[in-house]
Amino acid sequence: MADFKDKYNLYKKKVEERLESVCKKTEPTGIYEPVRYVITGSGKRIRPLLLILSCEATGGNPDDAVNAAAAIEILHNFTLVHDDIMDNADTRRGRDTVHKKWDNNTAILAGDGLLGFAYKSLLETNSPNIKEIAKSFTEAVIEVCEGQSYDKEFEIKNNVTIEDYIMMIGKKTSELLKCCAEIGGLIGGGTKDEITALKKFAYYTGIAFQIQDDLLDVTGDEKKFGKKSGGDIREGKKTYLMLKALDKAGNSGDGIFLKEILENKGAKDYKETDKVKNIFEETGVIGDASDAVIHYTEKANKYLDGLKESEAKNMLKWFSEMLLKRSS
Amino acid sequence: MADFKDKYNLYKKKVEERLESVCKKTEPTGIYEPVRYVITGSGKRIRPLLLILSCEATGGNPDDAVNAAAAIEILHNFTLVHDDIMDNADTRRGRDTVHKKWDNNTAILAGDGLLGFAYKSLLETNSPNIKEIAKSFTEAVIEVCEGQSYDKEFEIKNNVTIEDYIMMIGKKTSELLKCCAEIGGLIGGGTKDEITALKKFAYYTGIAFQIQDDLLDVTGDEKKFGKKSGGDIREGKKTYLMLKALDKAGNSGDGIFLKEILENKGAKDYKETDKVKNIFEETGVIGDASDAVIHYTEKANKYLDGLKESEAKNMLKWFSEMLLKRSS
Repeated sequence: MADFKDKYNLYKKKVEERLESVCKKTEPTGIYEPVRYVITGSGKRIRPLLLILSCEATGGNPDDAVNAAAAIEILHNFTLVHDDIMDNADTRRGRDTVHKKWDNNTAILAGDGLLGFAYKSLLETNSPNIKEIAKSFTEAVIEVCEGQSYDKEFEIKNNVTIEDYIMMIGKKTSELLKCCAEIGGLIGGGTKDEITALKKFAYYTGIAFQIQDDLLDVTGDEKKFGKKSGGDIREGKKTYLMLKALDKAGNSGDGIFLKEILENKGAKDYKETDKVKNIFEETGVIGDASDAVIHYTEKANKYLDGLKESEAKNMLKWFSEMLLKRSS
Repeated sequence: MADFKDKYNLYKKKVEERLESVCKKTEPTGIYEPVRYVITGSGKRIRPLLLILSCEATGGNPDDAVNAAAAIEILHNFTLVHDDIMDNADTRRGRDTVHKKWDNNTAILAGDGLLGFAYKSLLETNSPNIKEIAKSFTEAVIEVCEGQSYDKEFEIKNNVTIEDYIMMIGKKTSELLKCCAEIGGLIGGGTKDEITALKKFAYYTGIAFQIQDDLLDVTGDEKKFGKKSGGDIREGKKTYLMLKALDKAGNSGDGIFLKEILENKGAKDYKETDKVKNIFEETGVIGDASDAVIHYTEKANKYLDGLKESEAKNMLKWFSEMLLKRSS
């Protein structure tokens, strides 16, 4: 396990070196200052790790996947910069968001530039499958945009179901992980079956990851999680827990209270936030969410059976479990 | 000439059919309604035409270039949607801009989606040079972002020179045309020299095109041009004419008046606008701009000598002259 951690750190370092070098330009400062601010920030770099391990698990050389891994991380950051504008988010990973530190126009343009740099890094990849790789990447761009569109739509929509929610996070989170798996497998020269297995593994890992994120908002350690507990409740977000609780509480007093919270676009103070947390406890949705995280992680890991035995395969399993056990 | 016009319309139709089909999806509406609104709007489609003719002039089949031509048009529209937010522009081609018709968030997301669809269409191109094609496209994305960044920077910067301006429009306008030429030539299987000639032709045509645009704002027919005359003056834009006039008028009364207009972020009424127009007449910058348009068009056309004789080559010449003579 210690070895896996070391390897993770090694790959992270390679990706970060690549991120540093992909955009060395400084002028015009209006675009390059925010671009550098974003890509040199901290981050778990889990998408690049997934991509590199998928390459390795299909017999490829991890070094051949570093350009694509950096590309995925830049693409991910592009979505964060634009989403933060749309969500009016002031902080991200403990720092000001781009539109907060600069302004909306700068954040729009820096985001656009990031997407350009993402493709630039991707296209440095040396692989006979470069066309499929670029197609997979492009599909992910479109899916992520669709996911964000549904996310904004759900904010004002009543009767969002758990199925709607799973579909939305599938697009917003899982499609990008699926793309990491596919591109890694294409660079590694995996068989069609191996790549399909990796994609399924990544997809369900993504669903587990997002539900875990919702859960950590309620149960997480504030210091480790980098944001205040209950933030989703204060913003009136329709998370997995909220939708489950609405469903379970029905037209009871608790159910009516939760609906009011959503209508008011979030809990107005800590008292209301705590009351929502209590309802989450009492209706058992915290347990439901934990179960769902385990369910999707197990479902994901089953697909790893479709891969040949290798250290990378074992590390992929470690990777999904690390995400499941994370506290931030 | 009538033949060229017919051919232009034929290619335009092919591109528009492709634009129609590239994004048939309707859900989520938050992204697909504005995307369809944008790409089915009117437009001269000059970038697609340049790409297809560049393919033909290097011996390729124009039909092989239609996917890439549509991609370039979508990329161009992506830049317009985001630029319109940054520029607070309410109308575009006689219709409400996306952020005006919907809102900023929708326009950010629709723009992002458009860039995804642009790559999607590009990657449908069947060519052994697909990697270089995608690289060229990506360089154009980055250049256009840099151009927009300089454009915003120049809005608040004093002492912008004509050289700064030519550099900026080079990035904002010419690089995309250069990319059309390069991609067309790569699909057509042109030689390195042919592609270089086409790129130079496209680059200088772009400079001429943009100066012509600045000129039409002052001299153009309002109905044909689709926007009110003097709009750039009312917005206090540092156009080719304005920068030349500032240079020529120096510290005279006229020069001080022009500086005040820029400090006030534009002419406040028609009286001031007309006074600026008069200064443009008196300092001779309208003539200078016309000369510059002719100069850059001739410079562009000289590069066509590097191509074999063909109908497409003649049509490229017709194309640059059509842009030069346009009134809208």
